[in-house]
Amino acid sequence: MTTQKMRSVLKEVLKEIKPSVEERRKFNRISEEILELTNEIARKFRGYAIIAGSLTRDTWLPKKNEFDVFIVFPKDLPEETLEKYGLEIGKKVIDSMNGTWVVEYAQHPYVRGSIGDVDIDIVPCYRVNSGEEIRSAVDRTPFHVDYLDKNLPRPLSDDVRLLKAFLRAHDIYGADTKTEGFSGYICELLVINYGKFHSVLNAVKNWKPKELIDIKGYWEEKDYKKLRKKFKDEVLIIIDPVDKNRNAAAAISPESFYKFKKITRDFLKNPQKELFRKKTFKPLAQKELEVLLNKRRTELLMLKFGKPNVVPDILWPQLRKATGRLDDILSEYEFRVHRSDFWSDEKKLCTILFEMEVNQLPSINEKIGPHIWKETNSKNFIEKYKEVAINGPYIRNNRWRVEVKRHWKSAVGKLRDTLSDEEKTLRSKGIPSYISNEIGEGFKILRNEEIGELLKNKELGIFLRKYFEKEVLDI
Amino acid sequence: MTTQKMRSVLKEVLKEIKPSVEERRKFNRISEEILELTNEIARKFRGYAIIAGSLTRDTWLPKKNEFDVFIVFPKDLPEETLEKYGLEIGKKVIDSMNGTWVVEYAQHPYVRGSIGDVDIDIVPCYRVNSGEEIRSAVDRTPFHVDYLDKNLPRPLSDDVRLLKAFLRAHDIYGADTKTEGFSGYICELLVINYGKFHSVLNAVKNWKPKELIDIKGYWEEKDYKKLRKKFKDEVLIIIDPVDKNRNAAAAISPESFYKFKKITRDFLKNPQKELFRKKTFKPLAQKELEVLLNKRRTELLMLKFGKPNVVPDILWPQLRKATGRLDDILSEYEFRVHRSDFWSDEKKLCTILFEMEVNQLPSINEKIGPHIWKETNSKNFIEKYKEVAINGPYIRNNRWRVEVKRHWKSAVGKLRDTLSDEEKTLRSKGIPSYISNEIGEGFKILRNEEIGELLKNKELGIFLRKYFEKEVLDI
Repeated sequence: MTTQKMRSVLKEVLKEIKPSVEERRKFNRISEEILELTNEIARKFRGYAIIAGSLTRDTWLPKKNEFDVFIVFPKDLPEETLEKYGLEIGKKVIDSMNGTWVVEYAQHPYVRGSIGDVDIDIVPCYRVNSGEEIRSAVDRTPFHVDYLDKNLPRPLSDDVRLLKAFLRAHDIYGADTKTEGFSGYICELLVINYGKFHSVLNAVKNWKPKELIDIKGYWEEKDYKKLRKKFKDEVLIIIDPVDKNRNAAAAISPESFYKFKKITRDFLKNPQKELFRKKTFKPLAQKELEVLLNKRRTELLMLKFGKPNVVPDILWPQLRKATGRLDDILSEYEFRVHRSDFWSDEKKLCTILFEMEVNQLPSINEKIGPHIWKETNSKNFIEKYKEVAINGPYIRNNRWRVEVKRHWKSAVGKLRDTLSDEEKTLRSKGIPSYISNEIGEGFKILRNEEIGELLKNKELGIFLRKYFEKEVLDI
Repeated sequence: MTTQKMRSVLKEVLKEIKPSVEERRKFNRISEEILELTNEIARKFRGYAIIAGSLTRDTWLPKKNEFDVFIVFPKDLPEETLEKYGLEIGKKVIDSMNGTWVVEYAQHPYVRGSIGDVDIDIVPCYRVNSGEEIRSAVDRTPFHVDYLDKNLPRPLSDDVRLLKAFLRAHDIYGADTKTEGFSGYICELLVINYGKFHSVLNAVKNWKPKELIDIKGYWEEKDYKKLRKKFKDEVLIIIDPVDKNRNAAAAISPESFYKFKKITRDFLKNPQKELFRKKTFKPLAQKELEVLLNKRRTELLMLKFGKPNVVPDILWPQLRKATGRLDDILSEYEFRVHRSDFWSDEKKLCTILFEMEVNQLPSINEKIGPHIWKETNSKNFIEKYKEVAINGPYIRNNRWRVEVKRHWKSAVGKLRDTLSDEEKTLRSKGIPSYISNEIGEGFKILRNEEIGELLKNKELGIFLRKYFEKEVLDI
């Protein structure tokens, strides 16, 4: 049911998020021109071009003047040749349009070009017989393009736009490794599956974790259990219409899933334009930080180091992993982490935040050894600690124990020690390579109020506010 | 192999621990007189008397002028009658000898009498057909007496004495709940099994945990695995010669077991009289306590309350259990206990000591909820914390979480809170009844240097020294 109110809100919103007639005309003209030109050049290399992305289906949001051109090659072409041809064609196309280009690397190297205010990626891929036969993810795109062209009814284009804008306003639009949200493709699939924007929301409202959507009905209900097991860590399962063994929603994090449900509920309860606008956050101020420290009585440690020279899609998972590993190392040494988080400006700065529950430990430590029944282990344990024990070996609850001097009495000391390891040691401890490398170049640890000196950086201030005022989710 | 040195040491020791000829004569005379008298009176009640204990086998240590008289009744006698007869006979016997008596309670009520400097327990029991048919532990004693009389060769009496004295010097003689050590009966069985004192030591030196001794060969080697499983928490298994399904060594703690091995090694390496003398400990001084606190940087909490009016055999297990439970409660609230211990003077005072590794916690606390896949649990969790959450619900590592205000920020606060509960609440939390009751009457918690004020009590000072200078054990 769409209420009068919702209808009028959505109409208002559409006015803002729908590209103008001139904009669409201009954009279509450029894309057609590029497609024609690329096809002309590609033909000599046994390839042909297609436009990929929201452009052709009229589901793109304004101010996002970008599209991809995929060049499809026969599958007998050696990979090296494909890459060579792809770059050659890409460069030629952009040059002919008097644009500028750089070579970027993803599944294959590809050309990223700029023509006026429009960005164009020209990407080579293979022509395979079905989505299930692909060699690398890019080969799947032509199948997606084809499927959507045939299955997304044009009258629903604006509903896809609304959905994208709604998710974008809440930072969960995009399957990239920072966002871990809903891709454009997923938005289009949801509209194909549920219909109009409000129908999508009415469905999402009732989603349960491990919701399973199989648009083409590849599977029977009785297979769902098996599928949920197959995609076991994934909170939403959308069987890819072009590959029945793939979860197109694999990148979506539980946070994004529940955030979608939450904003959906909010909107259905009280439809308002506001919910399509990006919320603004005030950066945290030094004074507020001090009040928080005083109130929480935790110890805040902020690790700061340079941003490695890698694309965001590599940076964010590495930051995530590094944070997890350092968290584990602190816990191993019995410093309990209350919470941790990470942030980068994607330009120069990376930070990892640890909020400590236990930051200071006594000068002594009880090492718990094996069960007394295990003789060999017990012997080894006693042998190992004989010289350094300041008490024991003694027995408590049927286990051998010793009391030793504790080496690391503060979390910051242990953290600094770990980070001062050689790069290869850091890597062996699970800190990903680019992060290890950057830490090897230098790092700083700021404690409590000292973190205030970073608050000149407004974006960091916003990150910190979001850390302290976690978004309230619900089931 | 007994070296010349060891022989001479043992000879010296024996001079000190063997009762004099007059002493033995006097003691034997009294015991014979009592036995005769008791038998005379008991006969009218269908019972007969036996002397139980080391006296008759000449294995008693001097200055321990006590023995037990067991009155054996036919097994068709109702329990009430047995108890009534037992007390009547006991009182009559002591009165006839112009002694004084009190009634004590163990398996049955019994009479504890004093005649001059000799203490005599007069205990009723049933005559059953074998050790395996007994109704209560006292019924087993006549079988033990009979077995030892027939199997302990008189020439080995002094070896039993040496063994008892050796264990006594190191506080591991006795199966009582405080000592958890080696009873007189176990000493006698070890000598029956291994022979002379030095042979016992040569065997003990090589004992492994779950050592199994089956003097009468009730079992075959292939049963040992099953037996070790049956007596699964017991570190030493000595099949009772009068009951093949009983471990006569069940009361021995792992600490006592390894202590025996340790002193055995010490003695075999360097036999010296010193090892038969009780080590003296200097009570801990206030100044030393302060140095230790400074060095360890832990937080010491000492709980002090009155001694309940119960016999030591009930007091010590209750103290042990109470300590464990309070330790658990502190841990539940995330205060980590480094070590804990307990002590009583068995007169007026009980204490429980907690040495805290984590004593202070932040003002906030993260409650970890269920896995997001578990919908009902998740709903309940979110519902439960909705009102009190200061952050969240949010998701981390696929679990629901909230940040709440922490109620108990210090271990001493939580401990005082728990101990202030009503008695029945304390009991429901697993604090045994006599301890709950006593704590209900009042308690005090001393912190760090404050504990110094208790050090006027020298025995407590010794307990604390032993706590800080744990005995070094080895495998």
